[in-house]
Amino acid sequence: MIPRLCRFSLRLRTHPPLHFLHSSPFSNLSNGKTCAIIDGKSIARDIKSRLADEINRMRNGIGKCPGLGIVLVGRREDSQTFIRLKLRACQEVGIASFVKQLPDDCSQDEVYDVVSKLNEDPDVHGVIVQLPLPQHLNEDQIVEFVSPEKDVDGLHPLNIGMLAMGRDPLFIPCAPKACIELLLRQGTEIASSRIVVLGKSKISGLPISLLLQSHLATVSTLHACSDNPEIVTRQADIIVSDVGIPDMVRGHWLKPEAVVIDMGAKQVKDPSRQCGFRITGDVCYEEAIEVVSAITPVPGGVGPVTISMLLSNTLESAKRAFKFT
Amino acid sequence: MIPRLCRFSLRLRTHPPLHFLHSSPFSNLSNGKTCAIIDGKSIARDIKSRLADEINRMRNGIGKCPGLGIVLVGRREDSQTFIRLKLRACQEVGIASFVKQLPDDCSQDEVYDVVSKLNEDPDVHGVIVQLPLPQHLNEDQIVEFVSPEKDVDGLHPLNIGMLAMGRDPLFIPCAPKACIELLLRQGTEIASSRIVVLGKSKISGLPISLLLQSHLATVSTLHACSDNPEIVTRQADIIVSDVGIPDMVRGHWLKPEAVVIDMGAKQVKDPSRQCGFRITGDVCYEEAIEVVSAITPVPGGVGPVTISMLLSNTLESAKRAFKFT
Repeated sequence: MIPRLCRFSLRLRTHPPLHFLHSSPFSNLSNGKTCAIIDGKSIARDIKSRLADEINRMRNGIGKCPGLGIVLVGRREDSQTFIRLKLRACQEVGIASFVKQLPDDCSQDEVYDVVSKLNEDPDVHGVIVQLPLPQHLNEDQIVEFVSPEKDVDGLHPLNIGMLAMGRDPLFIPCAPKACIELLLRQGTEIASSRIVVLGKSKISGLPISLLLQSHLATVSTLHACSDNPEIVTRQADIIVSDVGIPDMVRGHWLKPEAVVIDMGAKQVKDPSRQCGFRITGDVCYEEAIEVVSAITPVPGGVGPVTISMLLSNTLESAKRAFKFT
Repeated sequence: MIPRLCRFSLRLRTHPPLHFLHSSPFSNLSNGKTCAIIDGKSIARDIKSRLADEINRMRNGIGKCPGLGIVLVGRREDSQTFIRLKLRACQEVGIASFVKQLPDDCSQDEVYDVVSKLNEDPDVHGVIVQLPLPQHLNEDQIVEFVSPEKDVDGLHPLNIGMLAMGRDPLFIPCAPKACIELLLRQGTEIASSRIVVLGKSKISGLPISLLLQSHLATVSTLHACSDNPEIVTRQADIIVSDVGIPDMVRGHWLKPEAVVIDMGAKQVKDPSRQCGFRITGDVCYEEAIEVVSAITPVPGGVGPVTISMLLSNTLESAKRAFKFT
């Protein structure tokens, strides 16, 4: 029997073949090759437009809209940026958002209390806790406290367990869902491809490996302790990198014509820019485009699609709650 | 930070180095090499002896013993054999067992009812449902109905999710736990080794991949859709096979000096035997021993150790319930 998650893949495959629309052929390479730059912003726009239509239909049909509860602890600058992006995206598609801000030094019980209220609120269909949390809080236990039925980040162990077992979890984590969406829209074959996932973070690397396995890929997961990673990456048809080390993956690590999904996004000092930095991925972009057939840029690749998947999960949850089809 | 599951590995490493005791050097190979045959029966005996001592200490200390509830649906011959082996093992170490037998045509609700009673029974610390179940029953939902606190098979999605996330699940599934035990007793380095897991069954292949990743191995998971598996297996320091196809893995699939853990166990017709069959693993044993440095035989390799891990999980659960240290 084909694992049930494959049906998700097949469903996604019914999208019109948008890869010509959403990737820009890059033809002026020194070696005369072309490399498609996968345009995450454009894909995200397309997804959000479909979500907005769907939410409009819900509002017109039953007078309701999806709601997303966001818990933010402390004042980390990167977390505040992510929250701003998520709030703007909610507004664009018509999802109501409820931000609960807690001080840096709040207690575990105070976080539980806020999460608990969002879990019980019938206007809230998705609950996310912006990670990372301050060191004194037990992040795992807080994530586990989010109701699995509202876990739109898909990080509750029950949902991860279902994903691992090839069963339909209530929610697929956003970054892995974005990764699959990008590959499918690029027209990249996943089943039986050799895929290397670099990194095994709970948010991205780990669930990506699990999801790709459900899509019948042959997956090798590499991490900080893996020796000679370039030997393995050079054999991969698809590379997904989620290590957070700027430019770690060099051109000679890649197989010609491979597809690269770069989940990395680190600030790197850049005095030539007014802000003093630029956002850089895990893959050395200038070298990679000379070798591979397609790549996601950083920024503007996986990031925007990941946020649109959060919106998609929230709508899915609201539809379930309202029994709206 | 080292993932928490690594502590399990480190704990196991405190065992005396028993690999000389539990593997028989096999020196008369045609190429003059030696290959250690990992003696699962002897390792299982050693584990059971330690468990029996521990259960004795519990009985003397608090007048209690662990209890295992087993649900058996129908009359499959292989299931009945497995149950007999498990019951005998329980008896050997002093675990009380409670077998609940249901007819082949029982309903889902009847199974729930039996599982529910075992979940609530204070004399029962572990509940297992012998798989596979008849086709008309929803196996996934029944496994999920076992209380995660008594899930000594470690197959509840919550426990699998915790395992995937590198957190301490309440129980690690028995076959993966056996696999790690065999590797550690053989003195095989797991961290940073390249390991290929063939097969991704919910009971063995999948949780083995997850557990090996928690032990910081570089894991590639292959399955029925993987093209040219022998190219990947030839690069692996350790091969774990769980596909159930007798003799599928040939000698030329293996890297010299690799270690092979063969989880396969299929009946193959053998007119030379009185019973008419023999139990055969996934790996062509005669060819493998000419190439690798160590291998588990079938039968007498992983099987007995897997059963002893079920006993170990049941004792662990009883200790937790009685707060016995």
